[in-house]
Amino acid sequence: MNLYDIKEPCDIKSCSFEELNELAGDIREFLIQSISKTGGHLSSNLGIVELTLALHYVFDSPKDKFIFDVGHQSYVHKMLTGRLKDFSNLRQYKGIAGFQKRGESVHDPWEAGHSSTSLSAALGMAVARDLDGSHFHILPIIGDGALSGGMAMEALNQIGSEQRNMIIIFNDNNMSISKNVGAMDEAFTRLRTSRSYTHLKDDLKHSLSTTRLGSNVLDTMKRVKNAVKDNIVDTSIFGEFNIDYLGPVDGHNIKNLVKVLKIAKQHEGPIVLHVITQKGKGYSFAEHDEEGAWHGVSQFDPKTGQSLAKNPPQHKSWSEVISATVLDLAHDNQDIVAITPAMKSGSKLQKFFETYPQRSFDCGIAEEHAMTFAAGLAAAGKRPFISVYSSFLQRAYDQIHHDVARMKLPVVIGIDRCGLVGEDGETHHGVFDIAMLRPIPNMILAQPKDSEEAQNLIYSAFQQNQYPYAIRYPRGSVPYKKLSAYSYIEAGTWSYQDTGEPQLVVISYGSDVDKIVQKAEANQLSLRVVNARFFKPFDTEMLEELCAMQLPIIVYESDVQIGGLSSAIVEYANDHGLKNTFVRIGLRDHFVEHGSIPKLRKVEQVDLGTLFQVIKDMLKEHSCE
Amino acid sequence: MNLYDIKEPCDIKSCSFEELNELAGDIREFLIQSISKTGGHLSSNLGIVELTLALHYVFDSPKDKFIFDVGHQSYVHKMLTGRLKDFSNLRQYKGIAGFQKRGESVHDPWEAGHSSTSLSAALGMAVARDLDGSHFHILPIIGDGALSGGMAMEALNQIGSEQRNMIIIFNDNNMSISKNVGAMDEAFTRLRTSRSYTHLKDDLKHSLSTTRLGSNVLDTMKRVKNAVKDNIVDTSIFGEFNIDYLGPVDGHNIKNLVKVLKIAKQHEGPIVLHVITQKGKGYSFAEHDEEGAWHGVSQFDPKTGQSLAKNPPQHKSWSEVISATVLDLAHDNQDIVAITPAMKSGSKLQKFFETYPQRSFDCGIAEEHAMTFAAGLAAAGKRPFISVYSSFLQRAYDQIHHDVARMKLPVVIGIDRCGLVGEDGETHHGVFDIAMLRPIPNMILAQPKDSEEAQNLIYSAFQQNQYPYAIRYPRGSVPYKKLSAYSYIEAGTWSYQDTGEPQLVVISYGSDVDKIVQKAEANQLSLRVVNARFFKPFDTEMLEELCAMQLPIIVYESDVQIGGLSSAIVEYANDHGLKNTFVRIGLRDHFVEHGSIPKLRKVEQVDLGTLFQVIKDMLKEHSCE
Repeated sequence: MNLYDIKEPCDIKSCSFEELNELAGDIREFLIQSISKTGGHLSSNLGIVELTLALHYVFDSPKDKFIFDVGHQSYVHKMLTGRLKDFSNLRQYKGIAGFQKRGESVHDPWEAGHSSTSLSAALGMAVARDLDGSHFHILPIIGDGALSGGMAMEALNQIGSEQRNMIIIFNDNNMSISKNVGAMDEAFTRLRTSRSYTHLKDDLKHSLSTTRLGSNVLDTMKRVKNAVKDNIVDTSIFGEFNIDYLGPVDGHNIKNLVKVLKIAKQHEGPIVLHVITQKGKGYSFAEHDEEGAWHGVSQFDPKTGQSLAKNPPQHKSWSEVISATVLDLAHDNQDIVAITPAMKSGSKLQKFFETYPQRSFDCGIAEEHAMTFAAGLAAAGKRPFISVYSSFLQRAYDQIHHDVARMKLPVVIGIDRCGLVGEDGETHHGVFDIAMLRPIPNMILAQPKDSEEAQNLIYSAFQQNQYPYAIRYPRGSVPYKKLSAYSYIEAGTWSYQDTGEPQLVVISYGSDVDKIVQKAEANQLSLRVVNARFFKPFDTEMLEELCAMQLPIIVYESDVQIGGLSSAIVEYANDHGLKNTFVRIGLRDHFVEHGSIPKLRKVEQVDLGTLFQVIKDMLKEHSCE
Repeated sequence: MNLYDIKEPCDIKSCSFEELNELAGDIREFLIQSISKTGGHLSSNLGIVELTLALHYVFDSPKDKFIFDVGHQSYVHKMLTGRLKDFSNLRQYKGIAGFQKRGESVHDPWEAGHSSTSLSAALGMAVARDLDGSHFHILPIIGDGALSGGMAMEALNQIGSEQRNMIIIFNDNNMSISKNVGAMDEAFTRLRTSRSYTHLKDDLKHSLSTTRLGSNVLDTMKRVKNAVKDNIVDTSIFGEFNIDYLGPVDGHNIKNLVKVLKIAKQHEGPIVLHVITQKGKGYSFAEHDEEGAWHGVSQFDPKTGQSLAKNPPQHKSWSEVISATVLDLAHDNQDIVAITPAMKSGSKLQKFFETYPQRSFDCGIAEEHAMTFAAGLAAAGKRPFISVYSSFLQRAYDQIHHDVARMKLPVVIGIDRCGLVGEDGETHHGVFDIAMLRPIPNMILAQPKDSEEAQNLIYSAFQQNQYPYAIRYPRGSVPYKKLSAYSYIEAGTWSYQDTGEPQLVVISYGSDVDKIVQKAEANQLSLRVVNARFFKPFDTEMLEELCAMQLPIIVYESDVQIGGLSSAIVEYANDHGLKNTFVRIGLRDHFVEHGSIPKLRKVEQVDLGTLFQVIKDMLKEHSCE
């Protein structure tokens, strides 16, 4: 069967196992070629090819519901549900998303981007189904990393109690993005290596040899049920949650997968089907990747595995700049410890982990616990640095609030991937953290404009021990030179640069600041460009001075406006009798879709072109007055 | 030993078991008498009397660290650590807190108010201890309800992996606030009823009979270690997390508790000590309470158990008004389902649960899962109502954001206990939810001024199915009459009432609105009092009209100002050329301590007295201009 002929998942139902295996090969080849051009999530999709084929072979989407946890491993599912033709626009503006997307297809009943939500969603759908008296299958597909997320365990607790029909596909590749950690992983290893795997294989051969389509249905069901009963392990961690367990089964053997899925299909109540897969399967570079380098990739040469994305010379990623500084400070300050919730590689903490293994902690996908663990360390006198992606930090809102800020514990929070992140889209943009953290008392919240300021801010964060100190930084790279000596930056201070006798003030932050200066200079515009490097506390003294200049003021922010920097400014101006009006440019009150960052900034009208058009119009207006 | 003679916990170390038992009786009597006068957490403290005595008998606080999960069961601990004399001011302004409090005593190494944080904190402290090369014991004391919270399980996952010394006291009373739910509870029941309990008792008698203080220490340790080994159950849910388990043991038998604690004290690595306690022990009214009526109490008559707090006639609690309305609507709308994260009683959902058991779901202490479970139901066409206390809703920030609002799922969120809540203090005030939810796209957020509007808002929330709709309401009661017919309130509309030809505008919300009207009338002040019943979207048309009136405008809000209603107003005014200045009265940027609500409002200058002083001053000023 030709991959391109598949319009609906039912098209594969007539395939022989041999044809399905061929199809798996074609899908892998397509994935590698296609993602090498568009970028995207490679390893997890290579790992789930046979499993996805088997799922669509045995079940009937969209009647049956597939809920891919996180959703970035749904590419094969998308290819089998009529979206193969759209892969050239994967993750591009107005192209198909890199995650399941309800608006994209009836075959996507749920969408996510954050981990560990699939079980809760599946239980909600199962309850709705049962209340409606409907009959169909609900299949959350969840990885071992996501299973250790707290809300997944909360869901297991209720799933075991509710006993609704549900087939939990436990896609176990012993990885989340990088190598998994934690005691549950050890429990999973016990299951992985348990004798039931071989046992199951042999046993199934026997009990299913007579179980063919076409034979008496009731009879078949009875046989199948006995097969389930025989193969269920009672002593799994799932058993503790009162959920039956079946497996493990080789996730790359379609024939076995189909057999076992058919067993699970007959099972009453919730069941976990343990499927062992290999991340990156079939692409040797990705198969031997323990650090997650092949998890999400940008363009690469499929032959050599070399990335085609290049940092400009003397550039480092923001994450690297931050982590290198923490590592440097940790040399003299023995109290500094580093914490990551399963993002060691993304946050560039590998070197810290290698250098100070006793002072390094990967908590797994568990932002809530990770943050309170940091609070516990700080309460005991340590100086934790915890790096979390902005969007995932949302998971730890209460822990920052209740456990860190309320007790004024000096945790240093690195907010990685702030601002628009581009192709990962809605679920990943880090544009809410300022609004999220600013109302929390005792917080210090800053963003550096360049790598020098980044280093000094990290230094300053560790110089004080009175407050939690969050420093946000975006994706991408920045010119970098290691400082020979750090300078202390007082919390709440801004700086500015004039490009001539100022005729207009632009207040901005992050790497936009220098770009505005450069563009103003190139256009011979005389601006005062303010680097509002602190959102909280902020430089009220400088704000008063700026307002007293009687010039037009623009606040240019690359995050949501509600509750953001400009909100802080207008609140202050109102309360202190400053009569200025501020022209606010920033993200409006909606979720921003996926696409390249430059494209999105243009679409959202938060780009330098828009800013300078506004500046020119205002200067014209102002000079006419 | 006289209870009043205990100044330091070491004072009880010379007691005989008989004396300790007498002390337990005195403590119970004191708790009942004292809490009957001040109000507070009764049942959980009655349940932990012997356990707390045994802990202080065996361990050495403050060197050893007791971390009480949630912290409201730390009264006995407070009594034994020099704070008995302060109980007459328990939970009152500037009195001792109802939770552990770092600033209050060196014996409180951690503080909480939200559930399930103790294990993460304990692990942080254990890591810090080990990095410092120190030696002391860390004992998180956590209930069975709190253990099912996701972050507690995330912590177990890392605790099992780290294998630091830590004694987890599993205080199992088969309750959180009301009866526990979920599959884990069933797993706990298997442990509760396992033979190891009796087995342990007999066995210990034997192995510890020779284990006395004074005998050869090494020898003792060896014996004790064997006793541990013999008594550890390998098949507990804790075993799946690679944590040793010891128990269960009767939590009201001090002698046995002391013995088992001494065993645990010698154990290497993390160990769970399973202690069975009875909530309300020793006070018959509280012992027979399945719904949590004796969990947190206001003043009562210790003899009769009758509460001395009385709702005024024709009043109902806000929670009751909301829940009664949801119940009423559920009669005609079969799609309505109700969800609570372990707050059935507090949220007054019992009647819904009784009437529609198939459509009622208690998810346990698991706000994250509960919210995404609601999202799953909504994605499948149901109309979930989920009621969560404002402060606990912080736990579900990401789930509201990523799972509900992003997908525009029409979940109706009841935000109970909003605003200042009084005696529970810092960790429980519900003053952040407006600022938390307002930056999230697609949200509708409202608060009714009275019970009529409450009923109509709930009705209106279910009339639409486009947006998530959150309705917040405070503690306390409100005059109530069931409406004979509902009226639809358009989202984003405000209303107002004039107390004469307006000379000044007050924009407020909630039950303050009518109080302002009444006080203005009583003082013959001519105000326009605006009921800003929607925070998002809000009534920009009315705001424009108000601004056009050229009158002084006060925004009077009972929550944090940053990001709150007044923030929305000044943002809008700035962007739309409204030149008005708004006098903002609301909570400043800090955590508010505990005390009665009237006292706190006065201290925070968010009370009617302050408001009307400001009004009078402004009117005087305005008339002089």
